[in-house]
Amino acid sequence: MEQKKRIIVIGGSAAGPKAAAKARRLDYHADIVILQKDPDLSMASCGYPYYVGGYFDDRNMLLCTGTGVTRNPLFYLNAKGIEARTNTEVTAIERKARIVACTNLLTGETETLGYDKLIIATGAIPRIPPVPGADLDGVTTLQSMKDADFLRKVRDEGKIKKAVVIGGGLIGIETCEALQLAGIDITVIELLPQLLTFLDWELAKLVENHVKGKSANIITDNGIIEFLGNEGTLTGVKLQNGAELDCELAVVAIGVTPNVRLAKETGIKIGELGGIEVNEYMQTSDENIYAVGDCVESLNRITGRKVLAPYGDLANLQGRVAGENAAAGNSVTFPGTIQTGICKVFDYAAGSTGLSETMAHRLGYNDIITVVNASPDKPGFMEGLLLVTKLVADRKTGKVLGAQCVGPGNVSKQIAQWAMAIQGGLCVEDIVNSDLPYAPPFSLAIDHFIATAHIMQNKMKGRMKGISTVQVKKKLENHETPFLLDVRGPDEYEATRLGIGEALIPLGALRKRLHELPEDKEREIICFCKISLRGYEAALVLEANGWKNVKVMEGGIMAWPYTREK
Amino acid sequence: MEQKKRIIVIGGSAAGPKAAAKARRLDYHADIVILQKDPDLSMASCGYPYYVGGYFDDRNMLLCTGTGVTRNPLFYLNAKGIEARTNTEVTAIERKARIVACTNLLTGETETLGYDKLIIATGAIPRIPPVPGADLDGVTTLQSMKDADFLRKVRDEGKIKKAVVIGGGLIGIETCEALQLAGIDITVIELLPQLLTFLDWELAKLVENHVKGKSANIITDNGIIEFLGNEGTLTGVKLQNGAELDCELAVVAIGVTPNVRLAKETGIKIGELGGIEVNEYMQTSDENIYAVGDCVESLNRITGRKVLAPYGDLANLQGRVAGENAAAGNSVTFPGTIQTGICKVFDYAAGSTGLSETMAHRLGYNDIITVVNASPDKPGFMEGLLLVTKLVADRKTGKVLGAQCVGPGNVSKQIAQWAMAIQGGLCVEDIVNSDLPYAPPFSLAIDHFIATAHIMQNKMKGRMKGISTVQVKKKLENHETPFLLDVRGPDEYEATRLGIGEALIPLGALRKRLHELPEDKEREIICFCKISLRGYEAALVLEANGWKNVKVMEGGIMAWPYTREK
Repeated sequence: MEQKKRIIVIGGSAAGPKAAAKARRLDYHADIVILQKDPDLSMASCGYPYYVGGYFDDRNMLLCTGTGVTRNPLFYLNAKGIEARTNTEVTAIERKARIVACTNLLTGETETLGYDKLIIATGAIPRIPPVPGADLDGVTTLQSMKDADFLRKVRDEGKIKKAVVIGGGLIGIETCEALQLAGIDITVIELLPQLLTFLDWELAKLVENHVKGKSANIITDNGIIEFLGNEGTLTGVKLQNGAELDCELAVVAIGVTPNVRLAKETGIKIGELGGIEVNEYMQTSDENIYAVGDCVESLNRITGRKVLAPYGDLANLQGRVAGENAAAGNSVTFPGTIQTGICKVFDYAAGSTGLSETMAHRLGYNDIITVVNASPDKPGFMEGLLLVTKLVADRKTGKVLGAQCVGPGNVSKQIAQWAMAIQGGLCVEDIVNSDLPYAPPFSLAIDHFIATAHIMQNKMKGRMKGISTVQVKKKLENHETPFLLDVRGPDEYEATRLGIGEALIPLGALRKRLHELPEDKEREIICFCKISLRGYEAALVLEANGWKNVKVMEGGIMAWPYTREK
Repeated sequence: MEQKKRIIVIGGSAAGPKAAAKARRLDYHADIVILQKDPDLSMASCGYPYYVGGYFDDRNMLLCTGTGVTRNPLFYLNAKGIEARTNTEVTAIERKARIVACTNLLTGETETLGYDKLIIATGAIPRIPPVPGADLDGVTTLQSMKDADFLRKVRDEGKIKKAVVIGGGLIGIETCEALQLAGIDITVIELLPQLLTFLDWELAKLVENHVKGKSANIITDNGIIEFLGNEGTLTGVKLQNGAELDCELAVVAIGVTPNVRLAKETGIKIGELGGIEVNEYMQTSDENIYAVGDCVESLNRITGRKVLAPYGDLANLQGRVAGENAAAGNSVTFPGTIQTGICKVFDYAAGSTGLSETMAHRLGYNDIITVVNASPDKPGFMEGLLLVTKLVADRKTGKVLGAQCVGPGNVSKQIAQWAMAIQGGLCVEDIVNSDLPYAPPFSLAIDHFIATAHIMQNKMKGRMKGISTVQVKKKLENHETPFLLDVRGPDEYEATRLGIGEALIPLGALRKRLHELPEDKEREIICFCKISLRGYEAALVLEANGWKNVKVMEGGIMAWPYTREK
């Protein structure tokens, strides 16, 4: 009889259990063991902020299957035929002997286990700012079930009144919402000039404005230099600019570092970014060892470069690939990531796929073209909600490099569409005639996604000379004097306006009021409206009447990230 | 000075105004005239059912721009520089002379207008069953603003108690919902064995069950043979099976026929399906005449065949193409349709893109593979809602041919993802590792779309032997005796069960209770659970233990379209 294969998985959160389950499906007879340091298994860690925020109250929902069965060792044994050991820390991997040493954290007992194939899914470790006071009571992260339990207790007790979140990334913003919903006065402190760096600045700013509208404070361009305490307990934080903020709670969310200690110690190759290096089979430099999830470096499918992409969905997909390869020999591959991500931010969502303009520039893409589109996601009569999308494409080919979307509308669907367009290698010209599911409860007749491609096509063909809100603002700051033309109706102007020296001539009156435009036909004119659809029509009217330097402010007032007069 | 071009557009609903607006953007100086038979312009006709159903009360919302301006002739003149004449019927096109003859329906005046380019957007005409009584008061369609006004009045007056909808297609079902929401006792009568023929039978049946749960009656496999009346007023309908139903209102929604009368009379080529034949430039057999919208035949991008695809989104996209070509010479093309569609059905949505299994068979695709997947759209802790998807792919290449999805979950996003996958020419192998926007408020870690591809991959690799609910039912009807194995928990079984002779052995107990399985290892065993994920695991356990004919009922109980015991 053939010897049973033993597959050991280190890590029991997302990628590990998925790998173990997939391996089991391919090899019924293998010994499959999950070694998990934490007391829990298969925690839905992306759900922690929603548990803390009170979206649901039953902690077990983070740990159970769709039908309510807790994914504990008994479940793994009975339903999957997998031995899952919790509270079990792997302390070393001996690659030559193909054994791992582990310690039962409850009893202190140690043991070694032999493996044929090993799958490392050790995840990532939250980064902590290297400043004094990080060990004070009241300083935490939201990275583990224990953290979630602690913050949920904070919510339930209702004693804490003031908190800070250090870091305005995805987890930081989700935590901000969760704590605000718990009735806590919250301030987010971000070192960089913007929140959510997967977005370009102007879209991040729209999100920031929304968060501020929810009475959460945001401080950007400022870092923490000290956690202040009294008798071991947090009382405040001190910032780089010298300011001190009182707070009883600080949640650190400045990102994570791949947890590669075990891999490093045993001599497995670590990549330049600090993650475990794997090939397309999710195999490490040791052919008997695979690695998956937040501890590895992934290939960016657009740039061909390695990236750190600690996302729960990728962890699952990688686990599936590694599980199959560990059980059945290398047969399936993981193609990499396009770094698609999304987060809920109060009534907004913010998502991105592919490259932002900032990322593209940083990576040396020097012939790109961008456009911003603002429109509702559905018709007004179905209570459509705003979407603001920024599209980044290659200027020559029109190939889509990335798209970002923010707003109260259905951002998730927009980003999913762009993600599939990128995965299909589509260009703007392919997208302009997309055949998408249209009915008024679900989208506009010309979906926001398609309309964004239309505007990009108009821009690429030179028909629309777009200018971004950021460029307009810069011109004003540089004391340039473009003629600013708002072409909305007087009622709209009365209700909302930029107040940057614009003239108001409604589009419907423009053809009759051309004499009010600058006499100098070379003068720069910048047209806009609520979303700049009428702005575009106005620009065409002016160009047809001889003005030579007419631009459209992309996304209009809805995409204006600065303060408005009204 | 160059002679101004004159572009005439016949039809002022969706495709026509879009073509006119696009032409204007490309040629500021052209004379552009819309000739519209109806009193209104740019009606959001897809919104009629929602107006009738009371989703909104302001009729003008169907006619206005996003900022509330009614799209009437004055709007077209001032904002777009387009002359739009309403109540103006074109009676003839004289191609040689390049003129159209038209009649003002209010004054009776006639006129001829010369054109350089003509765009025909005459739409479609609702089909009326050729049975007696179709002219009775109380028999209507929901195709025009006038129809919408009439049915909205029915709602507002609240006098009518019983109505029938003839036809269970998209418009029929939307109308059914609208009238049910108006408090009317409603029966849908469909000639075919199912509603919504863009779906395969088993998914349509799930929708039918949902509609019936909303107290709307549905009669399939039965047509109307007479509208019954008294003194010119509808009192009931008589069906093919002899039954008579009392009703005071009958809405006919058995589809539409391209309105090609003008085109036909002037000798423009009409296609085999009865629509105007156009090339990729949306140009008819007369090079100076374009045609767009419901009156044309479109290319199906998957099959390469012509189809009738009367969808509002395609009308707009075609209008954009024809408008540009008419104004600037043939330069842009319309690639065709993949027949993506969706409709809201009470708390469900039902959508489809590409080919259904039925359609694929009818068109001679004889090596296809299908799979059904049921799962929530989001995690349970975020109140995920059910989605049931059926995927159709080419068996050899795995190329996606079509996908359908129904349920209370986010169907629209699922269909959009499939539509983009088809447009990108993607195969199942490309989709299994899709990088989509994941966060618990928006999707599962492995999105339903990706999971569907995973199941298909398992089926294509021969790892999962799927069997459809329809095939299982047939076996039972043929008195075959497969061993039916429900592997859910006892609580679930107590709450819901098929009652088709199944044995209950929870997955977690299966490994210990194998002795309860048939001794005959050749005996057919069909495993299932709520959605058949556990059913799949159970099948693998049984196969590993020597049973040779083990199948998984795809989609499990959630996809079972027949009555259940509980």
